[in-house]
Parts: sequence; structure tokens; C-alpha cells
Amino acid sequence: MSNISSESLPPHRVVIVGGGFGGLYAAKELGRAPVDVTLIDKRNFHLFQPLLYQVATGSLSPADISSPLRGILSRNKNTRVLLDEVIDIDPERQTVQLNGGDVPYDTLIVATGVSHHYFGNDQWRDVAPGLKTVEDALEMRRRIFSAFEAAEKETDPEKRKAWLTFVIVGGGPTGVELAGAIAELAFHTLKNDFRHVNTAEARILLLEGLDRVLPPYAPELSAEAQGALTKLGVTVCTSTLVTNIEDDIVTTKQGDRIEHIPAKTVLWAAGVKASSMGKVLAERTGASLDRVGRVIVEPDLSLPNYPNIFVVGDLSHFAHQGDKPLPGVAPVAMQEGKYVAKLVQNRLRNIPTPAFTYRDKGSLAVIGHNAAVVDLGFVKFSGILAWLTWIFVHIYYLIEFDNKLVVMVQWAWNYFTRNRGARLITGEDLLLEGAIAPPQETTTTSAEKTPVNV
Amino acid sequence: MSNISSESLPPHRVVIVGGGFGGLYAAKELGRAPVDVTLIDKRNFHLFQPLLYQVATGSLSPADISSPLRGILSRNKNTRVLLDEVIDIDPERQTVQLNGGDVPYDTLIVATGVSHHYFGNDQWRDVAPGLKTVEDALEMRRRIFSAFEAAEKETDPEKRKAWLTFVIVGGGPTGVELAGAIAELAFHTLKNDFRHVNTAEARILLLEGLDRVLPPYAPELSAEAQGALTKLGVTVCTSTLVTNIEDDIVTTKQGDRIEHIPAKTVLWAAGVKASSMGKVLAERTGASLDRVGRVIVEPDLSLPNYPNIFVVGDLSHFAHQGDKPLPGVAPVAMQEGKYVAKLVQNRLRNIPTPAFTYRDKGSLAVIGHNAAVVDLGFVKFSGILAWLTWIFVHIYYLIEFDNKLVVMVQWAWNYFTRNRGARLITGEDLLLEGAIAPPQETTTTSAEKTPVNV
Repeated sequence: MSNISSESLPPHRVVIVGGGFGGLYAAKELGRAPVDVTLIDKRNFHLFQPLLYQVATGSLSPADISSPLRGILSRNKNTRVLLDEVIDIDPERQTVQLNGGDVPYDTLIVATGVSHHYFGNDQWRDVAPGLKTVEDALEMRRRIFSAFEAAEKETDPEKRKAWLTFVIVGGGPTGVELAGAIAELAFHTLKNDFRHVNTAEARILLLEGLDRVLPPYAPELSAEAQGALTKLGVTVCTSTLVTNIEDDIVTTKQGDRIEHIPAKTVLWAAGVKASSMGKVLAERTGASLDRVGRVIVEPDLSLPNYPNIFVVGDLSHFAHQGDKPLPGVAPVAMQEGKYVAKLVQNRLRNIPTPAFTYRDKGSLAVIGHNAAVVDLGFVKFSGILAWLTWIFVHIYYLIEFDNKLVVMVQWAWNYFTRNRGARLITGEDLLLEGAIAPPQETTTTSAEKTPVNV
Repeated sequence: MSNISSESLPPHRVVIVGGGFGGLYAAKELGRAPVDVTLIDKRNFHLFQPLLYQVATGSLSPADISSPLRGILSRNKNTRVLLDEVIDIDPERQTVQLNGGDVPYDTLIVATGVSHHYFGNDQWRDVAPGLKTVEDALEMRRRIFSAFEAAEKETDPEKRKAWLTFVIVGGGPTGVELAGAIAELAFHTLKNDFRHVNTAEARILLLEGLDRVLPPYAPELSAEAQGALTKLGVTVCTSTLVTNIEDDIVTTKQGDRIEHIPAKTVLWAAGVKASSMGKVLAERTGASLDRVGRVIVEPDLSLPNYPNIFVVGDLSHFAHQGDKPLPGVAPVAMQEGKYVAKLVQNRLRNIPTPAFTYRDKGSLAVIGHNAAVVDLGFVKFSGILAWLTWIFVHIYYLIEFDNKLVVMVQWAWNYFTRNRGARLITGEDLLLEGAIAPPQETTTTSAEKTPVNV
């Protein structure tokens, strides 16, 4: 065990792995503490993942929702940022092994999040991309806008219908937001842009395995959300499982009914699994993992027998509050990161820290123009007021790091014009009939994964 | 020959190849004319190329300087946009051959622009990327910011110096703008972001083969620009030729002096050559090409013997005004596009059109914060007033298509904070020591190339 006392010289070394909400809030909280902080991430920026669906649907640019980690932390003189990947950890020697060498720690905070999970159907990865990274979002954007272009050129009515069918798998907040945004694109933004095809003929299907969308929310909000989606033109299919995705056909099972849906664009918003650091921690410390690979933590977010190793954010399975583990959402990660940062400072002063408690400030999800649902616990509402609440909360958290005034202007502009200026098809070669290239390989082990509702 | 008369039914068909400044201004001008317009481009957006260097250096996002072509032209009910590539043309049958089939025309306007030119050293393409497309700009951005990250990790002082050396080849407007922006990054924006490396030790070298930067401008402005660059910290080497780029060494020749400069980042802003449509036109119509493959046009921008085929913008070599052909800049392309659109309408009404004349409204180039040079012909100036002129002109042209209010806000923000929020390293895998992947292959034959000063 390390010597955690305020007399220790040189300063106590805190190593944080992952610059998502959990890791970044821990780093910020430690910015003025008498410790040495090292933040390690594979990417040079923090990504505001809750708005990633707006990049995927052409409203915002990646840089609008990203902030360079060095910029955010440049004033914290006790903090260095390493752009590197963690390969392994050695809890006995207290080092983290990177591609570029070993980094010793006194306290280790792991916040590497989760990635997509295809429930054993990894072959769906190429045909149904998920939404976790900037590259994922640009790939979704490319597919969505390329599909309309392909439909415009298609002469076979069946194939055209398949190009105009968008299937979103998973009715959590990301799925709901994607479905709503694509509906707005098809029925409003793009309606005058094409000459051969009527984009209003597009079908947007939202598939959810449970019996309602937004399953973690109150049932009345799920009903509100489903109503708003339907009004927007989204076909919501609940209690519907995807059994196969192959050759541009999505096969679904609703009770006994099997359906084959021809669709060229399938987007994955269904499942997550822990990043590979979970497995590393389990092997090296004997910590237990849950069904999706998250690390089961103590009431203070540390690992059993390793009180100087903490896991925060989506990678953390915290089951000491309520009847379910805490959800994988940004507010949980932020609070966990801050908590551990305070605990580390308390320990240096020999002050005990009570167990972590999550303060749930509520849940929100946006469906579309003027439509959202908000559950603040003591009150639930939907409609334009919920939408304004959603906007306010997201702007508030966005500007916390890096005054993203631009996003506000962009949203105001988009709101009044219903325009989406960021609908560029970039990256891969231009789509020509049927020629959608497979996406870049999605890394399932990266340190940049940050919490998001799925 | 087509029957160009106002009695012709169905309407006269105008096909425009390329959605850069030349093609787009032609299309806009024809939006209310009694003709059928087809605009063909490989990309789904118009790119405001004069600001592409701001994407490459992390100030703006691609979508800030791009506008979806369908969006720009959606109100022109006589206009359709085809996302496709031109393979060939048949001037006798009056058709354009696309990947997706043939398109007949009565009038053809070709505006496919130019691409990089490595003067016979195509092996430099991978080590010294140019700046013509959004992908090029993101690749430059990735290299520039990855270089600082690699320097931060590098322990060998010689290698670190190579990571901190940025060589820009070509002292035209793009080269000057890139050098100035990288100097601002190194000496201002990033100066507090790193812990091991002092970004102010960066060397930014601007190499120009002629005896001054901005060779097309008045000599006193070249001198002003060189002074401003030097003040910003850029090392300007004029009368300097690049003879080799290999193994992270740039070999230069200044008179008899040979120098070997270790540099990990080399950016190409030196030469252009015509897109492949030039060669196609020459083969099919017998038109003559100049030394870099541009098509030599008649005084009305048409081809000899083919009065219904026009070439506008950078691809056009117009030598009927002044002692040199018109330069490859956006204003020339805009005026040529508009001219041809008016000529087509005049012909339908049997009204003769005088030969094309370019109205030169002046030249401008920006060097950095508060520093630019402006030559309006009757007056030349530099400094903050020139910089404000530059901002005004660019905002004016940007908002013409697609009120890019966001760019104004972003610039205002960047100006006061000296921040650059778009400094994301995206796309290829994360840089790990030495592991900069080669860029995506640059297509030299695309229809999306639009005019820009180089």
C-alpha cells in the first residue's frame, strides 16, 4: 500500500485513466489540491457524448461538442495530460503500463467507460454502427445523408423504399433522440432538396425490446415520448427483438410475429459493454465484474483490497444505493469523479469520507423540435417546457468547460430555420449506388469512452 | 449543334459540372431562367476553400465553411443536383457520362477546378499533404496537433526538435495563412498546454521559390507580409527550392546553399494542376491545354468550335485580358460562372453577349491576429485595417449562401480568447510515437475542386 499522508514527499501521485465525464471531473476537482495529477486518454479531447446524436444527424460539428483536454486543464499546473493508451496495470508495483512506458501512481482512478455491445452478434457491427466516438457519429451522418442521395438516384421502387427506411435499434435516450432527429430531417429539413424522391415517404422505425421506450423513466413519460415520436412520424415498435441483420434486411420478432424489414440504414443504440480495462482490473486485483463487464465497486468506489484504486463512471457497477446499480449516465460519472477527488484529498488530511451517494437530479430526453420529456423526481413534464429545460441543461454543462457560445447560436439558428448545416458526407469515398463502405473498425477497448445513456 | 432558341421545347438543358465557386454561381444565376439546370458534383456540399486553412489549424469546423448544395439550390425549382462523378463527355451526342448513366445537355459548363501538383514528385504526396478538400484539412489538423503531442513525449532532443519543426512549402496566400496560423498556435494558443515541451521553441519555416512571398501581389505588400510573418515568429526563406523530402528531412537549395532540415511536419501549398476534366475536354473537342493542364478558352469562355461548352474557374485558362492568364482565385470563378449563365440566357433571347472581362476588386491575404495585406488596386494597405477588411469580405461571401452567423461568433470568440476549439485529432488511430499514418489517398481527378489562391 502506498503511503497516503500529508507529510509524504514528493507529492501524492494521482493517475486518472479516461477523459470522459468521470475522469475529467476528478481531474478538475484535484486541480488545486497538493497532488500530482496525470490524466491519460487515447484522444486529445473530451467529448460531450450526450449531444453526439446531433453530430450524427447534421446539426452540430464534432468540435462543437468537444474540448481539447489540454485546454480544459491548462491552468491546473499540477496536472499533465498524456495522450496514450493503457495496456495493463500492476497494482503491487503501483504502475500503469502505457504504450509509451510505465507511469507510477499512489492513487489510480479508472474511468474508461463502455462501448457498443451487439449481444454476441459482432457481425452486426459493420451493418449497424453504434454511436460512441466522433468517428462513429461521422459514419452515421455519412450513412444517413448518403441514403437519401441513393434513394434520389434509385429507379427500382423496392430498393428506393429500402434506402428510405431507417431502423434504429434500441429505445433508450440515444435511440429516441436519433429517431426524432432523422424524422425531422426527412419530413422538414430535406423536404425541398430532392427532385425525384419525396423524403416524406421515409420510414423511421424505432425498435425496443422492452414494452416501452425510455425504459428507465417513469411509464407516463415513456407514453408521452412515444406519442411525440409518433406525431413526428416515427414508427415505434416495442416488445420487438432484432433477431438478424443481413443483406439489408432487419429481421424482428414481436411475440410470435416474425417480420423482415428491407432497410439500408440500421443504427445501433441498444447495448453497451464495459471497456477492456474492466477485465484488466479483474485479472490484476481479483475484482468482480457484472454481466456486461463493469467492475463492482465498494461503497467508496474503490476496489476490494485496493483502497487506492477507484472505478468511476460507466465502467463502475455501484450497487449500494437503491435496488439497481446506478445507471450509465453523465451525472453519475460527474458525481463519482468529484467524490473520489474529494476522498483523495480527505485521506491526505486523514479525514474520513462517508460512502458515495448519488444525488439524482432527474432524467431528460429530447424527441424533436419543441418536444422532450423531463423527470425531476418531484415533477414530470413534457412538451416545449421540457424541451427548453433540456436545452438549458445541455448548454449549462457544455459551457462549463469551454464556453460553447457557438452551440447556442447554432441551435438558435437551426431552430428558426429548421436547417442543419452540418449535413456533409465526408470521409469515405462518395456513395455510389450500393457502395457504402464499412465503417472504420470500432475499438472496444479505448479510454475515450464516456458515459451516455443508451 | 443544339437548337438554342426561345421557341425550343422542352426547355434548354444546362449541365454544370462542379459545385465550386464557378459552377455554383452559374447555377444560382440560372435559378430563375427558363432552362433546366443539372449540377453534378462528387460531394454533397460547396466548400468555401479560402477558409480551409482555418480548418487545418483548428479554428473552424468543416461544416462552418461548407454548405449543402441541395440546400443552397432547393428553392430553384428548375435545378436538380446529382451526386455523381463525370467519367467522360461526348460533345457530338451532347451527353455527359456519369457513373450512374448519361445526362444530355444543350449547354455544358465545366468547373472542376484544380488539385495539388508536386512537380513530378508524386512520392511527396504522402509526406507533404496539400490543402484542397475537407479531408485534406482534417489530415493537416491531425498532423499539426499530433506533432505537438509527439514532441511532448519525445525524450531525444534532436527528435523533439524535428517534431517541433513545421515546413510549409509555397509562399502564396495559402502558405502564408498556414504559416501565420501555426505560429499563433505554437506561440500563443498552446503555450500553457504542455508540461515537458515549450511550444514556443517551435520553428515554422515558410519556403518560397521566388524572391518574395505572395508573388502575385505588389512588392510592397510582399514586404509587409514578410515583416508581419517574421514578427509572428515565422522563418521566411525566399528564393528557396525544395529538392527532396524524405525520411523526415526536407532538403532545400537557396542559390548554391544546400540545407537539410529535419522536420516531421511538411505541408504543401506550392503548386496546382488541372483536374482530369481538362484532359477529357482536350481529347473530345480538340481544345488546347496550357502547361498545367488548364483549358484555353475563347473570349466568351467557350471552347473553339464548341460554342455550347464553357470552362469556368480554375480549370479555365483565359488569356484575353492583360499579359497573363487570369489567376485561379474565387472572384474570377464567380464572375466567370455568372457571365456564362447570362450568356446562355442572352442566346435564348438571341441577344449577343460581349466578351468576358474580369473586374479585379483586389487581392487580400491574412497573416495572423490583426495582420493582413490588402491590395485594392487604387490603394494598398496592411495591418489591423487590412485584417478587418479581410474578415468583412470573407463573412460577406460566406453568408451569401447560408447565413454562417456561427463563423462570426466563432471568430469573435477566438479573437478575444486566442483559443482554437477545433483542435481535435480525429480520423486515423491515435498518434503514438512515430506512428503518423499516411493520409487518405488524395484524388486528383475529382469534380469537387474549387478555386483557391495557392
